[in-house]
Formats: sequence, structure tokens, C-alpha cells
Amino acid sequence: MLREAIYHRPKDNYAYACTEEELHIRIRTKKNDVPSVKLLFGDPYNWKDGEWVFETKEMSISGSDTLFDYWFIAISPPHRRLRYGFVLQDGKEAVYLGEKGFSDEAINDTAFYFCFPFLNSIDVFQAPEWVKDTVWYQIFPERFANGNPDNNPENTLAWGSVPPSPDNFFGGDLEGVIQHIDHLKTLGITGIYFTPIFTAHSNHKYDTIDYMEIDPQFGDKETFKRLVEICHQNDIKVMLDAVFNHSGYYFPHFQDVLENGQDSKYKDWFHIHEFPLQTEPVPNYDTFAFTPFMPKLNTENLEVKEYLLEVGRYWVREFDIDGWRLDVANEVDHAFWREFRKEVKAIKPDLYILGEIWHDSMPWLRGDQFDAVMNYPFTTNVLNLMAKKAISPAEFVENMSSVLHMYPKNVNEAAFNLLDSHDTPRILTECGGDTERMKQIYSFMLTFIGTPCIYYGDEIGMTGGMDPGCRKCMEWDESKQDKHIFSHLQRLIALRKEERLLANGGNLSFLPSDYHEKCIAYTKSNGKQTLLIILNMDDAATSFKVPFDIDTETISDIWSG
Amino acid sequence: MLREAIYHRPKDNYAYACTEEELHIRIRTKKNDVPSVKLLFGDPYNWKDGEWVFETKEMSISGSDTLFDYWFIAISPPHRRLRYGFVLQDGKEAVYLGEKGFSDEAINDTAFYFCFPFLNSIDVFQAPEWVKDTVWYQIFPERFANGNPDNNPENTLAWGSVPPSPDNFFGGDLEGVIQHIDHLKTLGITGIYFTPIFTAHSNHKYDTIDYMEIDPQFGDKETFKRLVEICHQNDIKVMLDAVFNHSGYYFPHFQDVLENGQDSKYKDWFHIHEFPLQTEPVPNYDTFAFTPFMPKLNTENLEVKEYLLEVGRYWVREFDIDGWRLDVANEVDHAFWREFRKEVKAIKPDLYILGEIWHDSMPWLRGDQFDAVMNYPFTTNVLNLMAKKAISPAEFVENMSSVLHMYPKNVNEAAFNLLDSHDTPRILTECGGDTERMKQIYSFMLTFIGTPCIYYGDEIGMTGGMDPGCRKCMEWDESKQDKHIFSHLQRLIALRKEERLLANGGNLSFLPSDYHEKCIAYTKSNGKQTLLIILNMDDAATSFKVPFDIDTETISDIWSG
Repeated sequence: MLREAIYHRPKDNYAYACTEEELHIRIRTKKNDVPSVKLLFGDPYNWKDGEWVFETKEMSISGSDTLFDYWFIAISPPHRRLRYGFVLQDGKEAVYLGEKGFSDEAINDTAFYFCFPFLNSIDVFQAPEWVKDTVWYQIFPERFANGNPDNNPENTLAWGSVPPSPDNFFGGDLEGVIQHIDHLKTLGITGIYFTPIFTAHSNHKYDTIDYMEIDPQFGDKETFKRLVEICHQNDIKVMLDAVFNHSGYYFPHFQDVLENGQDSKYKDWFHIHEFPLQTEPVPNYDTFAFTPFMPKLNTENLEVKEYLLEVGRYWVREFDIDGWRLDVANEVDHAFWREFRKEVKAIKPDLYILGEIWHDSMPWLRGDQFDAVMNYPFTTNVLNLMAKKAISPAEFVENMSSVLHMYPKNVNEAAFNLLDSHDTPRILTECGGDTERMKQIYSFMLTFIGTPCIYYGDEIGMTGGMDPGCRKCMEWDESKQDKHIFSHLQRLIALRKEERLLANGGNLSFLPSDYHEKCIAYTKSNGKQTLLIILNMDDAATSFKVPFDIDTETISDIWSG
Repeated sequence: MLREAIYHRPKDNYAYACTEEELHIRIRTKKNDVPSVKLLFGDPYNWKDGEWVFETKEMSISGSDTLFDYWFIAISPPHRRLRYGFVLQDGKEAVYLGEKGFSDEAINDTAFYFCFPFLNSIDVFQAPEWVKDTVWYQIFPERFANGNPDNNPENTLAWGSVPPSPDNFFGGDLEGVIQHIDHLKTLGITGIYFTPIFTAHSNHKYDTIDYMEIDPQFGDKETFKRLVEICHQNDIKVMLDAVFNHSGYYFPHFQDVLENGQDSKYKDWFHIHEFPLQTEPVPNYDTFAFTPFMPKLNTENLEVKEYLLEVGRYWVREFDIDGWRLDVANEVDHAFWREFRKEVKAIKPDLYILGEIWHDSMPWLRGDQFDAVMNYPFTTNVLNLMAKKAISPAEFVENMSSVLHMYPKNVNEAAFNLLDSHDTPRILTECGGDTERMKQIYSFMLTFIGTPCIYYGDEIGMTGGMDPGCRKCMEWDESKQDKHIFSHLQRLIALRKEERLLANGGNLSFLPSDYHEKCIAYTKSNGKQTLLIILNMDDAATSFKVPFDIDTETISDIWSG
């Protein structure tokens, strides 16, 4: 038994409350090294005749990646307290593992073991229930639809007349979204994620000028209010994009510092290294990346904090939005996000808080900050297998098992799964224009754990490379829309609504990565019903042995019927 | 190279801000397996000609335990942002490790690497500066000194006339502490930790009746105010014990529930499973352990929360106390402790918050909750080697390296190191009455990293087993006091004050566990000056080769002169 490979920590993805009653415990061992792992557990205070009272229970493998097996057990301690360890057994030895290390025998001292001291309800990670069942649609407002030419910016170009560039404008607006609500309704989506809509300088609006106003190019507050109402009438949630890491260059407070330097009453709103401010050759103030046009906000400053918290509250309170997507969320302090969560959830307890973080996000997903992050590790793995054919099905299953074991199950269920966005090439382009691959990718995403998002236009076969290529005007000419993709997506979404197990009910398990050379397969099960999803990665047809006893089970094909 | 043994996570004890400028990065490898580890790092946004700009720097081993080597590097990223990975090299191969796994070559995509997105000052773990230099003295008030017979409880026994029992009283009080302040001053201690002093039923006072009053057996608020003032005049900090996990049975709010059941307006102050309440055979409400006399408080209830927060604020605001020790802190919700920290630090930013947690406490030590926990893993290891002779010096060094690598360096510096308490046998008893061992243990504790605490009476050689044995009346008859222990401790405390490096200045490193068979040795160094502490664990004298070039360095013996 390779002891160096064995890992557990008594918190985060290895030990967490999944509900107010149920703890999940995981442990990692070297792959194919340990045939049996048991949880040894008891109430920390339950002693009898000087002996700690404990029991043991078999754990099972919930997944494997390149190097490791991950073991899992769910347990509901009657007094919500748990001391526990592990009994690892192979042909040669049985080893006991506690916080104090390894032992050859069970130790009768609770101090040896790991501790989950108390399952306090308030500390349980709880994303809004509705998120699991939601299918998102991302809209980049400048490019979705021009519904009201009266608010066109200067130099607005004819819709789709030229390729998108970093600084051209086509007049997309909120009225355009309202006018096309039927398109979304027909597709079946149940949530819209809008990239920023507040007054800003650029076409992407990530350089905010006024956090309290709708950009006049997009409409006004009355229009936005109407848009939210129409969405809600159509059972569509609305999520806005908050850019709190930095303001735009033309944010009046920053302009004031540019003008008045040391004397500006806003000088502590930013991280300024010296006066006067300079933007060239490098800015002498903190910025997003090295962009002088996006000065980093000092979210530790009490005035800034209160200002941004009020922004957070305002759009929830006055416009009833359902979610906040937080731009560059990882570079803003944790203390700010804790307050942000408290403030906005006080107004709307089931608001969805989604952070833009591309890397391991456990520190933001402990229940006190975000409900989810944008699941780019999911994206990378899906693209590598199904779009780029750069990895094998076995590698895919191993990578995805790594991703799933990075977080608790209740975190995975609310994860924001995306294939592309305004920051990446479009999925069809990643697939080299192969619509079959693309359709397969959607089949995966819409049957997987997490809350899936479709980037506007993907559903009708739009293409485009990296920004600005991926920000083309939406194609409304039906003769140029790919109806096959649309109806494939429509069918998947409908199926996801019908079969609740597809939308995060039950437990997901991959079949072992060596089960089939060409296919990936996974089950979703609630104990009574089990769905099996099989995706063939090969161009040729293949046969697949269903891993059930079809004589005793009732089996039906919910896709082909 | 054993890949399964290699571990890093981009937060907590493996990646943390030690100051507002400096990040510490650690990684774990199999012991004696990897001869060289480098950090590969750069600003996430620093690209040149389509290539990410990074550099590499050698890491060094900061400690080893039974299975692993721990590598360390400190780094100050100019823009407070870091993407990083590791280059691990042995005779056969160089391997690159990032968040996405292992690679045989450096990868030119920042997404492959780990991320420390931004060093926000407010998120840096910061315990009060004064704590590192403090030497604590724990007082169990009922047993320290009876200074005012007028407030003796009924049936007060003559001081020390009989052994302590779970329910006898000897009249110890606050006036007694005031009268003996010179004893403490002569010893040299600079902080007192009082076990509870609020009105309660038992002699230990952990079953609070009134959180807003001094127990009349101990004195009154005027006396306590005077005590704090006298302590402060003598440069002694005062820490009180807060029992927020549970109240006492005679807490009026609980009595109200006992009396009025469902109709009590305090019924939601506790976790009650059904009415009427019963205490036998098992309580039908949550308790501390299974003790019906300590009903668990519902700290998620807004009224309870506000009540306890006001307790926290009140004694700081009105009496200027310097620290709160939090009883059974691990069973109270994290959300409560986050608010508690905010509230009490708003009144006194350098208040010390110390949680009673016996197990891995990383989740409470991330900067948002506690400044320290009671360092029982330290205690266990010290006792096993130096009191019980149950482990070898080499095992001790390995275990202590494990303990040190469980937490960030700035957390270790504020750790509350104790040898014994009202909850354990006394140290001299653990040493089998051997005062030489005991003196050596103090030599270790007072030269080690952390903030050390002496349990009342240990300094004059008191003995006693588990509670109630360890709660004897303080021995004030000088003829029965061990003056050798006292002067040894006095000298160590004075030395710790004189040589700031002893009190948490600089970096601590153990000499390798196989450096000497009988001795443990460690250095504390600030780059200019290095202190070497050598402790011989054998009864016989031994020789020890100093690991310095004594021809080129100036060396002096700060203990023997």
C-alpha cells in the first residue's frame, strides 16, 4: 500500500456537509492499490467503559484519475458530530489512518482521528435550488439584436455588415432581446446571462462609467424593467455582470483623480503608487492586467465597498434580477465577497452568485462567498476530447473525475458549465466546423452535472475565433441558420426538463475509463431509476455492452425511443 | 520520482500571504526522493511575443516528517499577482507540475499553472503583534488565591485543606490575583488567561448563568476593572474565556424553556428536538457532549447571535480586556465566528482571539475567524518525547515538522502553546515528578515558535492528575514551593525578552532528525544572527558538533555564558 499517495483533509472537497443532515467523506489512494477502504466513525463523546464507541462502514470508489482512486461515503451522524478515520486494507495489511497519521491498529483515543466537529446548518454550502434545473443563454448585448434604432450609438454599422472589431458598434440593445424572447422560449432556455449592460465606453462594456445606469446605447431602466418582467413571465431568470475588480477609465471617480491628483477625494478609491498619474509606458496605479483603461478598485476602502455593495443591492432590489456574475472575481478580496453575499442574499435569498474564476476555486466555494464559478476546467476537458480529438476517451474520464473531485457534490451541481463565451473561440469553430461533434458536445453538457450555458448564436451554427471573432452579430436570417443544431438543442433541453435525473438529480458515475475504447459512458442514478448516457467518440458505429442485467431490469431508450 | 506523493494546493498552508508583500509557497514530495525543486513563476498577464514570461528560483527544504519533505520559498510579486508551478528534478527526469497536473516540459499556457490571483491586504492572516512576545499564565480563579473571604461561597473549605473534587469550593477570587500580582511580575509573565469568571453554577464556571456579570464568588465588576488596570500597569495582558457553544443549565433563558416549553420565547435559543424537555435518560435537546447541564446554544438564531456578540463587545469595550479564549470553538458555526471577529476587532483591533480546538484548525485560521488555537498537537509531541520518553528525538523532529507544516508561518507564530491546563494532568505529573525533564520542557517551549503558556502553580512544582487533580489550590507556602523550577522559568522568560529571535523573530529550522541520536537541535535565524538551541534527551552528557564554521563566525553561549 503506497502510504505517500493517501490523502484526506477534514474539510473542503474531502469532508463536507452536503445537506443539513448528511456529511460526505472522501479519501484518495493510489490507483488500483487499495482494494478496500472503510470509514471508522463515531460520536466524539460516545464512550463506554473507557472505550470510544465506533463502527465501520465500507466506502466505494466514486472515480479515478491518472494517478488516484477516490473513495466516497455519505453519513448522517445522529448528533451532527463526527470523529472518524479510515481502515485501508490490501492483501498484506490493514492500516488505520487518522489526523495523527497511520497506525497498524485501531486507536482508542479520539484525538488520533479526524474531526468534523458539528454540522451547523448555516455553514452548509447552498446554491439556489432553481440553478440546477436552469439552462442558460449568454447574451453579448451589442451583438444580439437591434430592437430600437433610436438608441443606436454614433457610427452604428449595418447589422452584420462587417466583421466585429474591438471598437465597432452594431446597435444591439435590450429592446432587441425583448423582441426575440420567442426565439429563446422556443429553444427552451430558462436563464439569460447578460455581459455588462451598465454605462461604459467600449462595445463590451467591461469598462464601467456608471454602475447605476443602463448604457444609453442599450436602452434605459424602464426598458430593462420590462425585459426582466417579460423574462420572468416566460420563466426565464436574468443574471447581470458586475465588474467590481476595476472601473473604466472614464469612471468619474477615476477621472477626478486624473484631474486633481493627491487632492482628489477619490484618490483612495484606487491603488495609486505615485502622483501625478501616468498611463505610459506602464500605468503607475494597479490595473486589470496591464490595461491603463481599467484601474483596479480598492475594495478594502470603506467608501468603495459601500458604493459597490449598493450597486449589488440596487439591481436586485429595484429590478428583481436573479443572479450576479462577478467579473475577475478572483482578484477581489474574500472579505468583500463575504459582505457582498450577505447583502444581496438578504434581499433575495435565492439569488445566484457566480464568480469568474478559471482556476481551482475551492476557497470561494465554501458557502460564504459564491454559489458557483465559471467551470473552465470542464470546458478544457470537453474541448480536448470532443472538439479537438486531442485526448482519448479514457483520458477524458480521468480528467473529468479530477474536476469532479476538486469540489463537493453540491458545488458541482451548481457549477456554471460553458463551452465558449465572449472570451473564447466559438464551439463550432473549435470543432473545425463539424456540426456533428458540436451536437455531441451539447448532448454531453446537457446530460452532465452542473448548470449548462449556451453562447448566443451557437444554437444556429454561428462561428468565430478568439475575440473579436466570437462577437459577431447574431444571425437572424433564417436561411442562414442551422436548424439541425437548433432542434438538437431544443430536444436536449426538453429532455433535461422531462427527466429530472438529467438535471442534477441523483449521483453521477462514470463507467471505468477502460470499459470501452471508443465510448464514454456515465450513469445518473437516484437509487430507483438509473439513466445511462453513452457517447461514441468514433466516426464509425460501435457496439456497447450495457452494464445492467437486462433480464431483470426495465430498460427504455429515452433518446431514440 | 514518486508523483503520487507530490502535493500542493494553492491556498492555506501551501500558499499564503505572510505579509502584505510576501507570499509563501510550499510543496510536499516523498522523503529523500527529489533532490531539487524550483518554483516557476510570473505575473499572469506578462506576455511577450505570444509567450508567457516566467522565471524559476530554487526552493529549499523547510522540514521533513516520516514520509515527506516539505519545500519552501518566499516571493514578493511586484504586482501582487502570481501564476506558478514547480520544476521537480531528480537524476532521471525533470517534471513540471501545475494545477492541471504533471508535464514533461514547461507549458506556455498560464491556465496550466497554479494561481495566487491577488494579494489583498485585508485577506492576510494577521494576529496581534504583541502576542508573539507574550508569555501567558493560565489562572483557574477558584484555586489561585482567596483574597477576599467576604465573597466566599457557602461551604468554602480551608485553602488546600482537602484534595479538589468536582464540586468543592476554596474561595479563590479576583482579589486574590490582585494580591499576588508581584508573584507573576517576578516570574516575568506578560499575559493572564483566566478560565471563566462570569456567574455560573460550578467551580469551573463553564456552565454560565449570566454572561454579563462577574461571579459573585470571584468579586464584582469594580474588582475586575481594578484587576485589569493593575495588570495593564504591569504590562500584563488579560484574556477571558467565553463559553458560547453552550450555556449552563441555570441560564435563565434555558430555565424559561424548561418551565414554559413551547410557549417560552427562548425556545429557539437552543436546539430542542421535542417538548416537554427531558434530561433523562438522554437529553432531548442538543448539549455539549451528552451533558444535560450544558444545553447547546443556537448561534444561528439572530437573537442569540446578537446577545453573544454583545457579550463579546461588552467586556472589551467596558473593561478593556485584551483577548477572548473561545471554549469548544469548533462546534460553533463559522458564520458566527466571522461576525464575532468583526465586532470585537472593531472595538480593539489588536485583540487576541484564541479558539479551543484540539484538531487540525486550518478552516478557522484563514484570517477571517481566529488568531490562534490551543496548540494541543504541540503538547502531545512534547510530552511524548520529553515527559514520557515514548518517542525518539528523530520521531519528535518529524512530528513537530508535521505540526509546523499544518499551518502558515504567521499562524505558527501566534499559536497558543501549552503543556497542560485545567483539562489535562499537570506537566510535572506527566514527567513522573522529574523536575529536570520538566525544566527541559520549558527550555524547549520558551525558545520555540508560538506564544507559550504556563499553568498556574507549575512554576513552583505543583502536581496533579486529570481533572479534578490538576485543579488543586495554589501553594503559597514558600517552604513547599520548588524555587529551582521558578528561577529556571524566570531565567528563560527573561532570556526570551532579551533575545527577540527566541520570541518568534526570524525563521525556525530543525537540524535534520538524524543529525544527532540523543539531541534535538534547531536554529532561529534572521539572516544576520542565528541562535542554535540544543537539548540533550539523554541522562548522560554528550558531545555535539556545532553546525557552523566557528573560525569565521562570532559565537557566544547565551545560556551558560
